[in-house]
Amino acid sequence: MDKPQIGVIGMAVMGKNLALNIESRGYTVAIYNRTGSKTEAVAKEHSDKKLVPSYTIEDFVASLEKPRRIMMMVKAGAGTDAVIKQLLPLLDKGDVLIDGGNTFFKDTMRRNAELDKSGINFIGMGVSGGELGALEGPSLMPGGQKEAYDLVAPILEQIAAKADDGTPCVTYIGANGAGHYVKMVHNGIEYGDMELIAEVYNILRQVLGFSVEEIADIFKEWDEGELQSYLVEITADILTRKDDLGTGKPVVDVILDAAGNKGTGKWSSQEALEVGVPQSLITEAVYARYISALKDERVTASKVLHGPEPKLAAGVDKKALVEEIRQALYFSKIMSYAQGFEQMLAAAKHYDWELDFGKIAAIWREGCIIRAQFLQKITSAYDQKADLQNLLLDPYFTNIAEKYQAAVRDVVALAVKNGVPAPGLSAAINYYDSYRAEVLPANLTQAQRDYFGAHTYLRNDREGVFHYTWYEEQ
Amino acid sequence: MDKPQIGVIGMAVMGKNLALNIESRGYTVAIYNRTGSKTEAVAKEHSDKKLVPSYTIEDFVASLEKPRRIMMMVKAGAGTDAVIKQLLPLLDKGDVLIDGGNTFFKDTMRRNAELDKSGINFIGMGVSGGELGALEGPSLMPGGQKEAYDLVAPILEQIAAKADDGTPCVTYIGANGAGHYVKMVHNGIEYGDMELIAEVYNILRQVLGFSVEEIADIFKEWDEGELQSYLVEITADILTRKDDLGTGKPVVDVILDAAGNKGTGKWSSQEALEVGVPQSLITEAVYARYISALKDERVTASKVLHGPEPKLAAGVDKKALVEEIRQALYFSKIMSYAQGFEQMLAAAKHYDWELDFGKIAAIWREGCIIRAQFLQKITSAYDQKADLQNLLLDPYFTNIAEKYQAAVRDVVALAVKNGVPAPGLSAAINYYDSYRAEVLPANLTQAQRDYFGAHTYLRNDREGVFHYTWYEEQ
Repeated sequence: MDKPQIGVIGMAVMGKNLALNIESRGYTVAIYNRTGSKTEAVAKEHSDKKLVPSYTIEDFVASLEKPRRIMMMVKAGAGTDAVIKQLLPLLDKGDVLIDGGNTFFKDTMRRNAELDKSGINFIGMGVSGGELGALEGPSLMPGGQKEAYDLVAPILEQIAAKADDGTPCVTYIGANGAGHYVKMVHNGIEYGDMELIAEVYNILRQVLGFSVEEIADIFKEWDEGELQSYLVEITADILTRKDDLGTGKPVVDVILDAAGNKGTGKWSSQEALEVGVPQSLITEAVYARYISALKDERVTASKVLHGPEPKLAAGVDKKALVEEIRQALYFSKIMSYAQGFEQMLAAAKHYDWELDFGKIAAIWREGCIIRAQFLQKITSAYDQKADLQNLLLDPYFTNIAEKYQAAVRDVVALAVKNGVPAPGLSAAINYYDSYRAEVLPANLTQAQRDYFGAHTYLRNDREGVFHYTWYEEQ
Repeated sequence: MDKPQIGVIGMAVMGKNLALNIESRGYTVAIYNRTGSKTEAVAKEHSDKKLVPSYTIEDFVASLEKPRRIMMMVKAGAGTDAVIKQLLPLLDKGDVLIDGGNTFFKDTMRRNAELDKSGINFIGMGVSGGELGALEGPSLMPGGQKEAYDLVAPILEQIAAKADDGTPCVTYIGANGAGHYVKMVHNGIEYGDMELIAEVYNILRQVLGFSVEEIADIFKEWDEGELQSYLVEITADILTRKDDLGTGKPVVDVILDAAGNKGTGKWSSQEALEVGVPQSLITEAVYARYISALKDERVTASKVLHGPEPKLAAGVDKKALVEEIRQALYFSKIMSYAQGFEQMLAAAKHYDWELDFGKIAAIWREGCIIRAQFLQKITSAYDQKADLQNLLLDPYFTNIAEKYQAAVRDVVALAVKNGVPAPGLSAAINYYDSYRAEVLPANLTQAQRDYFGAHTYLRNDREGVFHYTWYEEQ
C-alpha cells in the first residue's frame, strides 16, 4: 500500500463516509478516532479498502505523506480546539489541516490566524449533502490559504458532487472563514426553502382542503418545472410515505410538529443583523422553528385565542389557485436567495473576502441540500454581471418577480384572511415591496429619532446634516 | 457645601443633565470629564448649583463621600473599560460604580464579575428618555449587586420619572447584566413601535390618500384612546411641523427616508435568536431600517421592479377603514410586547435572573420613549399572574386580540394587495396565527430533517425518538 496521501480524524458517520469517498477515488487514507474501537470497526468492515488505521494521533500523523493533508470531521467547538492542540506539536510548516465540521466562521478565522503563526495551513470547509452526500459526492465550500487549497484541490474535486455539465461542486471560496461563512448562508437558505415548502403545504391542506396524497402529487408535478429541487423532490416522496408503526396514517401525520435546529440558521440571521442586511425570510424561518418547538404553549394558546375557520370561497378555481401557490413559492424562494446573496456581498466587504457569487451558486447545483436547477439561473446572472448588487436586478429574476407578484399577493392575503400562518411568504412580498420602494416611511422614523434623541437627519433636497427645533431646548 | 454624595463622570449632554437632575434633588454632585474644559464649562454655566468640578480623576474620587457612588456616562465600549481601569486603583471595597451608558449586557456581566473580585460593586443601568428625560426624569433600569442598588436607590428614586400613581420609574432589575438586558429589549420594543407607526402612516398616505395634515389629526385622535403614548403623541406633533428651511413643505417631506440605528435593536434581535424566542416584529423593524438605508439601491430597483398602483376601491368607507387601521396598530403593538416579554422570560432562565415583569412594565410607564398608558395593562396582567407565560394568555390581551384580529387581516391584505410594505403588521398577524396554532406544518420540516440528515423525530402519539427508513441505508 502507498503511504496515505491524506488522513481523516473522526470516524463518526460523516468522517467515515468522507474517508470511503476519498479511498474510492484511488487514494490511500489514514484514519484515526479518539476512541480506537471506532477506528478498528471501520478498518475491519472495510478491510478490502486502502484504509490505514492508527490508534495514537502520533502514529496517525507519522503515517502521512508530506506535506500532510489532514481532514478533521469532529464535533464543532471545543472538540475541534482539542484536536488542534494535540496535532500542533506533530505538524510541520506547510502541512494542511482541514476542518470539515459545522464550525462558526469566526472560530475558523481565529484558528486560521493562530495556526498561520506556526506556518500551518488551515482550511475551514463547509460540507453539505448529509451522510449520503459525504459518501457519494458532497458540495464543498473550502476557505483558507489559497496555496493550501491548491494542495488539496485535486482530491476535493474528485470527491465532490458533479454538476450536469461535469463541473465538480467545489471551488476555493476565500480567505480564512469564508468557506464556513458561505456554508452558514447555505444553511440559512435551506431553512428558508424548508419553511416556504411547509407554509405552502399547510395552505394546500388547511385552506384548499387537499389530502396528503393529493399534495404529494402537486409537489411531484412542481418538481418537473421551475421548482425542481432536492427539497421539493423529497417533500413529494415524504408525503407518499405511510407510518412504519402500523397506524395506517401518512407518516407526516404522526410526526410531532416541533422542528429542531442545530444553530446554523440562527447564526446566519444573527450575522445578517451584524452586517446590516435585511434577511427577513431566513429569519422568519428560524423563528418558525422556535415557535413550533413551543408545542405545549401553542396547545394552551389554541384553546383561548381563536381565529377564522379556514375555508375556500365557493366557486374558486382550485387548479388556478394551485398555480398561484406555485408562483408564490418560486417568487418567495427568489426573494430568499436575493437576501442571502446580498448578505454574502456585505460579508465580503465586511471581512475582506473576494467571493465569486456565480461560482458559489454553481457548486450548490449538486451534492447539497438546496441543490436545484434554479441555481444555474443565479450563476448565469453573475456571469452576465459579476458585480450585480442584488439578484432582483438581473433580467431573469426581475421578469419572474414581476410576473409572479400578483400571485404572491393573492396567496398571502388568502392565508392571512384564513388564519393560516405564512410568515415566510409574507416576508417575501414585504421585502419585494420595500426593496422596490423609491420612498419608504423611514423619514417619519428619522424625524422621531431627531425629536426624542437629537439624532439629526439628512434631507432629500440638499446636502448636510440637520436638526429640527422640535421644542425649546433647555 | 457638603462633601459630594455622588459623582458623575462624562459631561456630554446625558451626563451633564443627569448631574443637574441629581443636584436639583438637594445633593452635592462631583463632576469630571476627560477633557477638563467641558467640566469647567458645565461648572461655569451652573455656578449657582452644588456642582464640585475636578480636573483629575484622583481629585474627583478623593472628593466623594464614602462609600463612593460614581455614575459613568461615557461612550459605551472601550471608553468604559478605560475609565474603569483608571478608577480601579482609586476605589475601596464597597464603593458603587454605575454604568449608565448604552452598554451591551454581556460587557456588563463581564465587568460586574471582574470588579466583584476587588469588592467593588458594579451596576449596569439602562437610562431611557433622551436628553430631556435625563434632566427631568428618566426611566432607570439598574442591574447588579442588590446591596449596591440599595446604597443608591434613594437617589435613583428621586431623579427618576414618576408614574401617574407617584411610583418612581426605577426598580432593581436583577443581577449583573439584567438592567442593560432589559434596556436592550426596551429599545427593541421602541424599534417595533416606531416601525408600526411608520407602516400605518404609509398606508394612510399611500392607500387612503390622506394628506400629512389629515394624518396628524388621526394620530392626535388616536393619542386620546388605547394607543395613547409618547411615540403616537410626537408623531402627531411631527406631522404638523413645516420645514424650517422655507420650502413650505411638511418637514417629513424633506427628511430623507433612510433611518439610522445605534445597534440596540440589532442586539435585541440577535439575543432573541440566541435564547430561542420568536421575536419577529422587532426583527422586521430592524430590517426595515436596514432596507431604508439602501436608498440608492431602492431608487435603482424602483425603476425596474414594478407593482400595483396603490388605490382604494370605490365606495370604501374611509372612516371605518381608519378604525380598522387603529385596531391593527394596537393589535400589532400587543404582539410585539408579547414577544419582547417572552424574550425576557427566556433570558431570565438563560442568564439566571429573577425578573419581575410587572415592575418592568411599571417603570416604563413614564420617562422612557415607549411610555404609554398601555403599560399599566401589562403590569396588571402580571399582578394577576406573576408566572404568565405569554401576555396573550392574559384575559385583557386575549380579548383585544380576538376583537381586533379581523381588522389586522383586512389591513395586511390591503397593504399587500396595494404593494405597500407592511412587514411589522404582517409579522404581528403571522405570530398570532402561529402561536395559536395547535398544529403547525413543522411535522413536514422535521420529516425533511430526518430524511436528509437522519436528525430523528418525535411522534404525536407515543413517547420516544424515531427515525424513518426513507431509503436503503448504505
